[in-house]
Formats: sequence, C-alpha cells, structure tokens
Amino acid sequence: MKLLKVDVLAKAREKLLEHAEACLFETERVGLREALSRVLAQPVRAREAIPPFRRSSVDGYAVRCADVGGASESAPAFLKVIGEVCLGESTRLSLAPGQCVYVPTGGMLPAGADAMVMVEYCEAFSAAEIAVYTSAAPGAGVVQAGEDMKEGELVLPAGRKLRPQDIGALAALGETEICVYRPWRVTVLSTGDELIAPSKQPEPGQIRDINTYGLCAQAEQEGMKIAACHIVPDVREELERRITEAKETSDLIVISGGSSQGKKDMTAEIIDELASEGVLTHGLALKPGKPTILGYDRESHTILAGLPGHPAAAMLVFEQVLLWFYRERTGQSETVPVTAVLETNVAGAPGRRTCQMVRLEQGEGTMKAVPIFGKSGMITTLTKADGYLTIEENQEGLKAGETVSVRLWR
Amino acid sequence: MKLLKVDVLAKAREKLLEHAEACLFETERVGLREALSRVLAQPVRAREAIPPFRRSSVDGYAVRCADVGGASESAPAFLKVIGEVCLGESTRLSLAPGQCVYVPTGGMLPAGADAMVMVEYCEAFSAAEIAVYTSAAPGAGVVQAGEDMKEGELVLPAGRKLRPQDIGALAALGETEICVYRPWRVTVLSTGDELIAPSKQPEPGQIRDINTYGLCAQAEQEGMKIAACHIVPDVREELERRITEAKETSDLIVISGGSSQGKKDMTAEIIDELASEGVLTHGLALKPGKPTILGYDRESHTILAGLPGHPAAAMLVFEQVLLWFYRERTGQSETVPVTAVLETNVAGAPGRRTCQMVRLEQGEGTMKAVPIFGKSGMITTLTKADGYLTIEENQEGLKAGETVSVRLWR
Repeated sequence: MKLLKVDVLAKAREKLLEHAEACLFETERVGLREALSRVLAQPVRAREAIPPFRRSSVDGYAVRCADVGGASESAPAFLKVIGEVCLGESTRLSLAPGQCVYVPTGGMLPAGADAMVMVEYCEAFSAAEIAVYTSAAPGAGVVQAGEDMKEGELVLPAGRKLRPQDIGALAALGETEICVYRPWRVTVLSTGDELIAPSKQPEPGQIRDINTYGLCAQAEQEGMKIAACHIVPDVREELERRITEAKETSDLIVISGGSSQGKKDMTAEIIDELASEGVLTHGLALKPGKPTILGYDRESHTILAGLPGHPAAAMLVFEQVLLWFYRERTGQSETVPVTAVLETNVAGAPGRRTCQMVRLEQGEGTMKAVPIFGKSGMITTLTKADGYLTIEENQEGLKAGETVSVRLWR
Repeated sequence: MKLLKVDVLAKAREKLLEHAEACLFETERVGLREALSRVLAQPVRAREAIPPFRRSSVDGYAVRCADVGGASESAPAFLKVIGEVCLGESTRLSLAPGQCVYVPTGGMLPAGADAMVMVEYCEAFSAAEIAVYTSAAPGAGVVQAGEDMKEGELVLPAGRKLRPQDIGALAALGETEICVYRPWRVTVLSTGDELIAPSKQPEPGQIRDINTYGLCAQAEQEGMKIAACHIVPDVREELERRITEAKETSDLIVISGGSSQGKKDMTAEIIDELASEGVLTHGLALKPGKPTILGYDRESHTILAGLPGHPAAAMLVFEQVLLWFYRERTGQSETVPVTAVLETNVAGAPGRRTCQMVRLEQGEGTMKAVPIFGKSGMITTLTKADGYLTIEENQEGLKAGETVSVRLWR
C-alpha cells in the first residue's frame, strides 16, 4: 500500500485527470423542455440561417431608402401603398420607386425594400398614399436573413450548461433533441458510529448526520443523480460491502467521515484495496480539507473519494476536487467570481491553500468581504457564508483593505 | 378602458406590489431531500443546541490546561491515561489533576477536561501514561455545546433559497419537514400567426416559437411549475379562451408576442377585460421591454402579463418585473452583481432604463464587460451574454473604462 501522499490541490487535480482519464462521460438525448441546466455534449451549429428571411422588427412601412432620403417633419416624402404583408406568410410584393408596403413586426420584407419606417413616423395621406416624416438608413428596422445566426455558425459550445436563453436559441434552430451528458450517478456514504438519521433524537454522544444531506444536495445541484446514500457504522466489512455494491451503480462514491486517525486509515486501506489504481492522493494541502483520499477504479470506472468528516471541509473538497473534475471534463467554463474588499486580515496556513468563508456586504461602491471564523466541525460557518476566498499555498495571508476574488456558493 | 400608462420600472413594480397584494404565496411542507433550491417560508430557529455536547474536533487527549501549562518539546508534561471515549457514546469519565482521556474526532469530552491536545503532540510513555509536548489554551480542539448553533438562534431566515449547506444545517437540527413556498404555476402563451412549433420546418414567412421555450425555462429555473404552454394564433376568441382557462390553474399568465400595434391593443384589451384590476401598466420605460402590459385579477389571484414578442425583451421583462416580484414577495435577497470595467461606450435611451447585454472577459486584475450589440428580435444577443448592466432613466450612458455592476444571467 502506497499511502501518505499529501498533495497540493493542483497536484491532486492533475493526478485525477491522469488516472481517471477513462472515467465515463456518456451522453444522452433529451427533449428541449428537459434540457435546462443540462450540459451540452456537442457544439450546436446553426443548421439554417436565423431568421430564414428578411424580417421587420417594427410595425411600419417597408420602403426604399432612396425614396425617403432627406424626408423630415417639415418636408415629408409621399409614397404609394401597394399592399400589406401578413404575418406568417410569404409575400410576392415588390417595390418599385415611390412605393411602400405595410409590414407588421415579424413580417417578411418585400423585394425592393431596404428599410422599415416605423408607423409612428408615417401618416395616412389618402387610402393608398402615406406621408413619411423621416429618412431611413439601409437596414433600419430590419433583421437580415442570417443576421441572428448564420448557417453553419457555432451557436452554443460543447460544455455549455444550458440557460433559458440557450433553450430559446435551440428552439429557434428547431433543435428539439439535445445531446447532453448523462448525469453522474453518485453514492454518498457517511461513516461514523456517532451518526444517526436526522429524524432521530440523538442520545448523549450521538450527532445527526449532516454530510449525507449536504453532499447529496451538492451533487443534485450540479445535476448529478444520487444512486444511493447510507450511514455506515465504523465496521470495515460494512464499509467494504457498501463500496463494492456502489461500484456497480456509481460513477462517483464519496465516503465522508473517518476523520479520526484509525478510521482514516481504514478508509484509505479500503480504497486502496477496492480501486484498481489504488490511492492516488492521501492528504490534501488544503485548509480545511486535509483528510482527503482519492482513488480510481478502472474496471468499474468509478472515482472513490474519502472526504473529511467535518461538514464544511467535506463540502469544500467536494466542490474543489470532484465538482471541479466533473466541470473540467465536461468542458464547462468557470463561474465568474465576485470582487470585494476584504474587511479584516486573514491568515493563511503555511504550505497549504486556505479557503476562507466570507459574507458579502454592500460597501460604498464596492462589495465588502467579511470573514466568517469558526471551528472545524461547525456547519454555520457555511450557512452564514455567501462564498469563499482563496489564500494560495505560498501566501502568508491577506490584509484588510485588499481586493479579493470571492467564489459564490451557488 | 384605461390604457396607455407608460411606467418607469420602479412604478410598474410598485403598482404590482400594491394591486397584486393578495397574490397567493401558499406554503407546503417538503422532506429534507426535496428541499434544495426551495424557498423557506418561515425562519428556522435551532430547537436545540448544536452540538448538543462538548465535542472534540481532533483526535487526541482531553486534558486540563493547567496540567500542560508550559509543556514543550524539551519539557513535556506527563499525564495518566484513565480511559478512552467511544464515538457515539456518553462518557462518565472525569479528569482529576494529572489525568487525561483519549477522545477521537467527534467524541464527547469528559468532565474536568477543558481542551484537546492532538495526538501528533503526544507520545505513549507507558501503557497508562503519555508525554505531552505542547501547552493548550482553554477550548482548543473543542466545539462547545451550542457553539455551532445556540438553542433558539435564528439559523436560516425566511426567504432563503436553500443551498446544500443550508440543507446540511437543517439535517443537524433534525428538521426533516421543511415549510417552503408552493411553486407558482405559470401558463405561457406565445401569440402570433407567424409562429410554429420548433419541431416543424418553417414555410417562408414562418418562424419557430422561441418565447414559449425560453420563458418556460426561466420559470422552471426559478422553481416555478408550468401549468400549460401554447402557441396561440392572432384570433381574439382563441386568446380569450386560453387566458380564461389559465386563470383557473395559474398564479401567473404570460402572453408574449402581440408586439405589433394591432395585436398589442388586442392583448391589452383582453387583459383589461379579464383582470378585475384592469390594466395596471401599459408600456414600460425600459429598453428593451417597452410593449409590456401588466394586469391583476383579484378573483383568481392571477397576474396577467403581456410581454414583448422579441425574445430578448420578453426574457428581460420576465426577469425584471415578474421574477423580481416573486423574489421580493417571498423575501429572497438579491443576488450579488459582478463588478467589471466597461470596454466600450454604451448609450442610454432618454427617459428609459436601458439594459445592455454584456460578455465578461478576464482583464488584468479586473473583469471586463464587453457590450453585445444586436437588433431587437435577435436571440443570440442573449446567448452570447453572461449578464447585463443597467443605465438608469436619467443617465445619458456609460463610458469605456467606467466600473459597472453586471447582473449575471443564471
């Protein structure tokens, strides 16, 4: 057994990328109405030009710019109305000089026209004639064919987590079956003889299980599916049985707890035994998050992760290592951090990357980041936090008044 | 009919708050595993102290600080080990001077102890004696009873959109049935003779329906439920029938399209007729978003909203007016904007609030906001955008190099 490989975060991530390279990122097709928040597995290119025809973006008259050149309130141009375009229909109308056609918003421009004049700038002069009180630049009030999307243009890159407007663009293109990543299936095991289900009343010495609920919610928020979740007592055979079971059904198994020395060793030994690649990382130079164990099993394509028992540490490592890996491998872009001014000094841990929970407050013109201090093992340091800032391994700390980047908890 | 009430955004919001005051915000109870992203309808206070007992946050020995005062590597303190605490169990052990007890992470501290010394700083000296190579401050390595949450303390405020760590805190408290707001039921109607379902191939003059898909996704992203969605042709009786039907099943009806003059009047007239409070706002001093109509029906407790036909405008008004109202009334806090430096000048529209779509790019030390320009009616101005900035009604515009607040599209 090759244990005790304490890694900095970057190294742990790199090892995971390397060893879990064959991890499954399968795809599936879903309907457009089910595609929100799913991650695109392939880029989407426009199969046709959008809009497919020259479309008016206003209510008004399609004109030839030359006919209204120099027109103004005091010197209107007079045009002959030769017809009207109906929404949803093609038009055979064609403008000769001095002619115009009424086109509603969304309607097709007739041939010969090169701009729209809004109805507000026109006046019916007679049944078949209008006065136009403004000039028009070529293309005004018109969306050209292909101006929104050109045929063949990249509209959405692979890795895009689909937002409502992306769904709208897919609708415009007639993409009704979308190729997205199948969600990872996750098994969450919380170990510890002290743990009881939240529905139970703890006896002295017992504590309700936080990690199962917090970690399941984190996975689900990311769009993953929970294959199973269990409280597991500190009995080697029980944990081995649960992990062996889970390998058949899961892309990722997270085992939290086992923070105490003896239990930590047991989790590491079991991961080393049940994962073909053995333990990749045993100990993370991250605060909080030190007692982290990472392994990968090639046969079942499963990542096995031992997370700290302290809830805040477990959730942070889940985010920084496992969700990071998932987002990286599915090509998702990083979320944009919030810039804020640090309210008080924060010390880093020598040689370790430190994640400091902060609350954001509106300051004068800027946001203020107020550190939330609390002991390991507390959950309220996280519930009070809007996000966290990072102090790098080689940084001593951050000083009050410094501008910092805060990653928001979602 | 009292139409043509063009309102600035603040006024439209105020009218909605006033007239739709009786809008339904019903609550329901959900299990903890279903509570993620739901909005808390009541504050959650700690019914008991968390942790309920003094807990060790490290593996080591519970000691009396006085016994290890001045201990160091060169001058250890020697303590008698009188026993061990088991995880999940109470302990009757009590420390007399010179004594210590082994406690694993998460274990209960015995009486008499006032600090933990990590096992790394201790050495077994004989079977029943250890050497301690460090001093300890009172409370070190210990989470006091109630240090995480005091009995009666406010843990989560009403209006909190539950995040994974909030779910964790609820688990810690044994709150397994959570009182949250019932999701609003939304009917989405897209009007226009030119619209066809995305699965169909458009004939010349036809266009695929974007708004139904974009608006449904926006509502679902907010946690709302879609009661129904339909493409409705520009026939008054059809629209009246759909709205009348929807009033029975919906908290909110959004009718998009009808941007052309005649159709706009029709939607306004129907809302005025079918909503007991009539049309509250007819026209919004917002760019994009002018052709917006807001009404409220007191009998069915339904908000009726006519949104612009242009997809970007429809989605923006949905966000700025209707989702704003929902978040405001359910007590949700505003999301934190991202600060960025504007890349190019942006002009405002006189007397109207302007929302300018921007893409965010990493600049040197700051984010850059790059405006995305495009004609009304385009959807790609939104798919290319990370968020938008706002130019107030009385602002002429924003200049390149100015620091701006960008609201991210979620």
